[in-house]
Amino acid sequence: MNGFLSGWEARCASSSALRFVDVNLRGIGQVMFQDNPLSGALFLAAIAWGSYRAGAPEIAIAGVIAIVVATLTAQWFLVDETSLRAGLYGYNGVLVGLALATFIAPGPLLWAYVVLGAAVSVVVMLGSANAVKSLGVSALTFPFVLTTWLLLLATYGFAGLAGSALPAADIVTPFESVAQTRLGVGDFVQGVLLSISQVFLKGSVVAALLLLAGLAVNSLAAAVFALGGAILAVVVAHLFGAESDLITGGLLGFSPVLTAIALGTVFYQPSARVVVYAALGTVFTVIAQAALNVALTPLAIPALTAPFVLVSWLFLLPRQSFDRAATDPAES
Amino acid sequence: MNGFLSGWEARCASSSALRFVDVNLRGIGQVMFQDNPLSGALFLAAIAWGSYRAGAPEIAIAGVIAIVVATLTAQWFLVDETSLRAGLYGYNGVLVGLALATFIAPGPLLWAYVVLGAAVSVVVMLGSANAVKSLGVSALTFPFVLTTWLLLLATYGFAGLAGSALPAADIVTPFESVAQTRLGVGDFVQGVLLSISQVFLKGSVVAALLLLAGLAVNSLAAAVFALGGAILAVVVAHLFGAESDLITGGLLGFSPVLTAIALGTVFYQPSARVVVYAALGTVFTVIAQAALNVALTPLAIPALTAPFVLVSWLFLLPRQSFDRAATDPAES
Amino acid sequence: MNGFLSGWEARCASSSALRFVDVNLRGIGQVMFQDNPLSGALFLAAIAWGSYRAGAPEIAIAGVIAIVVATLTAQWFLVDETSLRAGLYGYNGVLVGLALATFIAPGPLLWAYVVLGAAVSVVVMLGSANAVKSLGVSALTFPFVLTTWLLLLATYGFAGLAGSALPAADIVTPFESVAQTRLGVGDFVQGVLLSISQVFLKGSVVAALLLLAGLAVNSLAAAVFALGGAILAVVVAHLFGAESDLITGGLLGFSPVLTAIALGTVFYQPSARVVVYAALGTVFTVIAQAALNVALTPLAIPALTAPFVLVSWLFLLPRQSFDRAATDPAES
Repeated sequence: MNGFLSGWEARCASSSALRFVDVNLRGIGQVMFQDNPLSGALFLAAIAWGSYRAGAPEIAIAGVIAIVVATLTAQWFLVDETSLRAGLYGYNGVLVGLALATFIAPGPLLWAYVVLGAAVSVVVMLGSANAVKSLGVSALTFPFVLTTWLLLLATYGFAGLAGSALPAADIVTPFESVAQTRLGVGDFVQGVLLSISQVFLKGSVVAALLLLAGLAVNSLAAAVFALGGAILAVVVAHLFGAESDLITGGLLGFSPVLTAIALGTVFYQPSARVVVYAALGTVFTVIAQAALNVALTPLAIPALTAPFVLVSWLFLLPRQSFDRAATDPAES
Repeated sequence: MNGFLSGWEARCASSSALRFVDVNLRGIGQVMFQDNPLSGALFLAAIAWGSYRAGAPEIAIAGVIAIVVATLTAQWFLVDETSLRAGLYGYNGVLVGLALATFIAPGPLLWAYVVLGAAVSVVVMLGSANAVKSLGVSALTFPFVLTTWLLLLATYGFAGLAGSALPAADIVTPFESVAQTRLGVGDFVQGVLLSISQVFLKGSVVAALLLLAGLAVNSLAAAVFALGGAILAVVVAHLFGAESDLITGGLLGFSPVLTAIALGTVFYQPSARVVVYAALGTVFTVIAQAALNVALTPLAIPALTAPFVLVSWLFLLPRQSFDRAATDPAES
Repeated sequence: MNGFLSGWEARCASSSALRFVDVNLRGIGQVMFQDNPLSGALFLAAIAWGSYRAGAPEIAIAGVIAIVVATLTAQWFLVDETSLRAGLYGYNGVLVGLALATFIAPGPLLWAYVVLGAAVSVVVMLGSANAVKSLGVSALTFPFVLTTWLLLLATYGFAGLAGSALPAADIVTPFESVAQTRLGVGDFVQGVLLSISQVFLKGSVVAALLLLAGLAVNSLAAAVFALGGAILAVVVAHLFGAESDLITGGLLGFSPVLTAIALGTVFYQPSARVVVYAALGTVFTVIAQAALNVALTPLAIPALTAPFVLVSWLFLLPRQSFDRAATDPAES
């Protein structure tokens, strides 16, 4: 693996075209925090497969166009080269492209929207990274969430853009399960895997396995935390009595998966304490996902990864206190 | 009083069990900014009495469990000892426990919710204190509000948790009073006192008197500002034509009471200027309370102390300018 | 012009009454970023004309009362003299006064509201300027938006205050144009000019011309960017299929006009790059305006200039990156 990657890196160094491909693949990898072109390539395969199987190849195309536009925009801004090469100005763009093409019906204005959203996602990334830097946290997928929310909300005011998969607006009402539902093994496994593939807005077992492979080639710990986060999310959502279709569709689990990876492997060094902390954050992300689904009901837009961003910020902000605790050998 | 407190402090110094009790009592006291175990004990008596009279002793139990969980969580984090001992990691927890048990029907998942919410309130406290520190303000009850809002919103997505006292969702409509209502002396006194007891989500005159006593033992000024804030809130709400039931139930006054104490006695040194400033803030908290009640109508959750947090932040952020003004003898 | 202004300045220096007038005129000018009493006087003429023609002279009166209250409040706070003299504590006040009198039916409590809102706008200005200072951005009209939103929301809870022009609450539904509409030249010109006059909540061509004159006497570039922003906004809104009445009424264009001035002339030095950047921000402000109109539908309040504030903050936060890019001669 390392041999392959160093060979690839050598070729990128001598070809600006390959470098551009490399940056975009890393951008796709960064959606799940992996600064690795091979992870990005496997994630892209997952996107392509999931879109093809859903009969909507234009979604994958929108994702690719969006990340290319985002990278070009970032280059135009002369952003710092290190972050650019690590794909940090691309991961929001690819998500904007996937989300717009998932929720809005195809048409010429959709493509204008994809280009506009991808470009703006870079501005929002630069701005929000700037804003939260002094707090010691990173922007996560906040730029994706904010940009996409505004673009989706605006479709309700524009006759030229129609939602194809947007939720219908309603006032908030309690969810009542019609009967005590049991979670069979098949449902459980499906819920866990789709919680992983829904990070890229895909409901596909094959895509989930490709994503796990993409994580594992760069970080085995990331793959383990992703799987553990998905399992914990499905179990907790079921215990609280969430709607079965949401659980088995992975729709309550994708934000918790990201929280688990972020708290467990990216921003804290793994330890027993950190596992407990990441588990608490993952469980609370399930709550936040259900809460934001409810809160957005009157607005008829999806929560996207906002629950992950919110809870991860909350759990990353106290880092100093926690780092001290984690490194104090006298404390159990 | 001082003799009693120094005797108590000496005993706490030699007993970790008593110290634990002391920390939790101070945590209850900090809901109204009083770092004093005796204030906390009187506030706890108010909670117990109010819960008992409302036929819901489980609410007081939830409050106690929540603050114990919060304190243990803070100890696990090895937070700074000074803040911990002053009860600053407990006051959000006790409010989370009281609010969850007030708004959600009893059941095993309620208790899981109380424990989870109390633990998360400490994380949010650490995080938000960190985030606002550089702005020269403190977290106030923001951790309570955010944690409880998410937990309450999520109940609408979980069949295992049912709201028992949550407002019904509706679209916003203007409030029209059916007839010109007069505010009698009895209604006025009740509105004032319940504005104080509703700080702990209680509608009880006895609880209000216990709370005033708890304030007075530590700070006579705090008791005076609490009472003054309640009176001002009731008068202003009546002048603007607010719903009589909300006024007499203290439901428009508890946030203004907290604003009055915070602006008048805690964060600014009392003076004629500060009294005017605190009064302006208190009046605007009545507006903010009415506004947030309206804004949360479609979401079917209560405003909690969000109006207090919002207005107090707004009025504390300009501190530098105001401190300068307050200390300039040349200005009238 | 310069001779007139230096003569005026000399008189202000020797008369505190004239200085007070000067500060208030500059405050009105600062609504569109012009620190110039002549701009303020022309803007005031636009307000007066627009109010008179709409048969609502009380709106102009409310604006004048509000800015006087705001200036007196700022003086009472002993804010820094430089900002005070530049009108920076007045522009939010005048907007609060205009908006309250526009959306709420006349009556004694409206005037209490105007005074209260104007005073609080100064507190919020001091606080939010403090909060965003370290991020390198300014408060813009955020104090106006927040203060007015709270005051308008609260009217739904107060029988004493009735909305006269507030939108009705509704759940979010897609907008469907009944037929393909064409944008004639007359509609286009009207939409462009009213986009400018709606900055002061006026739908008047004469007011728009007075505002353009007020911009031009202080900064020709500001007038050009205002006009260009309005044209771009009307074109983009039409291309996306927005409702014709909103377009021709200037209701989708006033926030983009402010964004265009802010990004193009105030906070960045003009250049080809900056024009592209300001255009991108202006286009995205149209999206944000449509999005916030939708998002506020359930709350029955208008978006005011929130889209301008949001997008301008997003586009100003990355300033460091952009400044570097703009000054690098090697980059095209």
